[in-house]
Amino acid sequence: MSILQDAREGKLRDEFRQAAKGEPLSAEEIMRGVAGGTIAVPANPRRRATELVGIGQGLKTKVNANIGTSHDYADLETEKAKLQAAIRAKTDTIMDLSTGGDIRDVRNKLMDECPVTVGTVPIYEAAIKALREGGAILKMTASGILDAVRQHCEDGVDFVTLHCGVTQQIVKRMLDRPRHCGMVSRGGTFIAHWMLDHRQENPLYERYAEVLDILREFEVTVSLGDGMRPGSLEDAFDGPQVEELMAIAELAERARNAGVQVIVEGPGHVPLDQVEAQVKLQKQLCHGAPFYVLGPLVTDIAPGYDHITSAIGGALAGAAGADYLCYVTASEHLALPGPEEVYEGVIATRIAAHAADIAKGIPGAREWDREFSAMRRRRDWEGQIEHCIDPKKARELRSQHRPSDEKACSMCGDYCVFKLLDEDAL
Amino acid sequence: MSILQDAREGKLRDEFRQAAKGEPLSAEEIMRGVAGGTIAVPANPRRRATELVGIGQGLKTKVNANIGTSHDYADLETEKAKLQAAIRAKTDTIMDLSTGGDIRDVRNKLMDECPVTVGTVPIYEAAIKALREGGAILKMTASGILDAVRQHCEDGVDFVTLHCGVTQQIVKRMLDRPRHCGMVSRGGTFIAHWMLDHRQENPLYERYAEVLDILREFEVTVSLGDGMRPGSLEDAFDGPQVEELMAIAELAERARNAGVQVIVEGPGHVPLDQVEAQVKLQKQLCHGAPFYVLGPLVTDIAPGYDHITSAIGGALAGAAGADYLCYVTASEHLALPGPEEVYEGVIATRIAAHAADIAKGIPGAREWDREFSAMRRRRDWEGQIEHCIDPKKARELRSQHRPSDEKACSMCGDYCVFKLLDEDAL
Repeated sequence: MSILQDAREGKLRDEFRQAAKGEPLSAEEIMRGVAGGTIAVPANPRRRATELVGIGQGLKTKVNANIGTSHDYADLETEKAKLQAAIRAKTDTIMDLSTGGDIRDVRNKLMDECPVTVGTVPIYEAAIKALREGGAILKMTASGILDAVRQHCEDGVDFVTLHCGVTQQIVKRMLDRPRHCGMVSRGGTFIAHWMLDHRQENPLYERYAEVLDILREFEVTVSLGDGMRPGSLEDAFDGPQVEELMAIAELAERARNAGVQVIVEGPGHVPLDQVEAQVKLQKQLCHGAPFYVLGPLVTDIAPGYDHITSAIGGALAGAAGADYLCYVTASEHLALPGPEEVYEGVIATRIAAHAADIAKGIPGAREWDREFSAMRRRRDWEGQIEHCIDPKKARELRSQHRPSDEKACSMCGDYCVFKLLDEDAL
Repeated sequence: MSILQDAREGKLRDEFRQAAKGEPLSAEEIMRGVAGGTIAVPANPRRRATELVGIGQGLKTKVNANIGTSHDYADLETEKAKLQAAIRAKTDTIMDLSTGGDIRDVRNKLMDECPVTVGTVPIYEAAIKALREGGAILKMTASGILDAVRQHCEDGVDFVTLHCGVTQQIVKRMLDRPRHCGMVSRGGTFIAHWMLDHRQENPLYERYAEVLDILREFEVTVSLGDGMRPGSLEDAFDGPQVEELMAIAELAERARNAGVQVIVEGPGHVPLDQVEAQVKLQKQLCHGAPFYVLGPLVTDIAPGYDHITSAIGGALAGAAGADYLCYVTASEHLALPGPEEVYEGVIATRIAAHAADIAKGIPGAREWDREFSAMRRRRDWEGQIEHCIDPKKARELRSQHRPSDEKACSMCGDYCVFKLLDEDAL
């Protein structure tokens, strides 16, 4: 029996108890959310993350950090450093998107050191295996793709991103009305590429029932990838994006019916005034399935600062109901990130998630701010540094320009409003 | 005749032509906006900024950078470096908030080197002069405060922040129902402090007609400061904040009637779901007066990253109609910022302003993204670096992990979606 099947039968599995830790919902409430499909608790029994999380309605907004090797930089030790940076910054989950070196070995070694939920994109490994063994990504086979899915499940991955919604009809629509920035999903592109060349339907769509059998067998959650996510503001809410979302909504329902937990992925590059509508449409079409967004980035023109453009979009998306924010680092669109960009990316996304939780009214979220600002009012500097989102960074900035009066800061000094307040009971 | 008086009479002054540069409105349209009070063009004829800007409805959202000495760090050269950092990052305006060293000398030397619009807060100088000469901020006199305003106008400042709305009634309301974080406006605190001690009304309120006479004489714009701005999420939209905004709305009308251009200042710390309402309320009460917000910060708990929390709030505020975003640096709440934090703060705020301009539908805003993402699609790396918001940072990050193929990046390399797209016409 899978986690979803057990939830439907009211079996209070240990995963629900673990996921309830630090959340406003009880294990029973999480179980009911899983049963209804509004919450997912990705947890592969083969590699039980020691810090499981629930993702979905009523829970705190979660943050994911992507790490992984690339063709140009395939060093395991660097990836381990990025993993540790993300954990130090308190990411909720990790996705290993490795495409360089011994992909399986990197994945397994990273998972050995990773205490949190792990997701992967098996099509990357299938594509690169075909390239290495057959000389071209196009040499992938349908069964090779399904084998990669099974392999990842066997290795203990908690959730897999699968671009099942990239159908022939949708690819045709995109080709008929070219988009400003084409397809920007790497997994989606690999598949579309193969489909066009082979004149065949997407195996992850055509053989979806088999895919679901594998996922149910290993109790792995599916994250339905958005191969048609907009890669520029121009392409947001265009035909291919919306048509794929409709296909994904149906696939999400089929997964739930098959006893497989589902997350739905979303954009991408979206103008600020469209972010809320993107979330509302997904929530309605997908019957409240957990929504996992990449950013969204509210402008295309800020490479070097995409952790900020995505914090803006992510905060808004979260406030509108998105449940799970994938970070974007400052290096996005420019280069593979290093540990520093990973760390900073997680913190920026946690800020967005927390701002969203306050707006969502998640119990406990606002209390942090209330208690924290009381420390600010009292000029309790050690308390502020200890309880802020990143004590190390706060301490560094304060030390850079130390105040002459330790009870103030070097910006206001004697003119500190809280100091005046204390002196005059204002 | 002041700029506002001339605008009402349809006199197309040179300031309107200058302010139209790079904007979607013509000089005539800007003149009509100034006449109607929905646009301000702060411009002191005594020190004409070489790059004037208009602030208000229909124009691009503007960005301000605060610089200035403090009691602990009063080095002119450092402030010059911060000024240059802000200019390099393309701030629209500068506010000199100096409170350390020879305040007047610092102000005048910074203005000598500053090509853009400059604002100040004269009460700081009045308070510190009273402290230095009389031993206490409380030794300020009403005429000393007005003298400081006149001095700043004479020195050529383009706009002054005056906390005219901090009335005895509002201070009493605040004391009757203590706020979580008290008053956090420094200028507002100096005045309230003085008012309580002297049992007198705020001179900037009581002698507002005289204040307006000075401002009109020198053609200086008033930025009505919000002494009661919330300093924590808890205090947003509380009685003192709203009552002061109502007082400010009346003062704004009086200024316009007296031929003085007006900007209205706003919060501060505001929960994400309340940002839009804050802007709508100001715009309605103040009859469309330009709205200048500080942040807003959507959470209190992120010192070290307040450039990001304020980029989130600023983008949202801008999209809802705010016209002018005051940056907040990473050092806020911890220390006086250095040039690096100033630079980064301006860029983060420009990102917020641009995302807002896209949402507002400002003509020309979205074109930047459209053309930029076309370069991304073509893998035109030099074009992207040259046209992005911060070429230097983008180049650094790209160089940190150079790609083996110069037409790709080190994240995706051969698996670059745009490369696959070119190869297969996908």
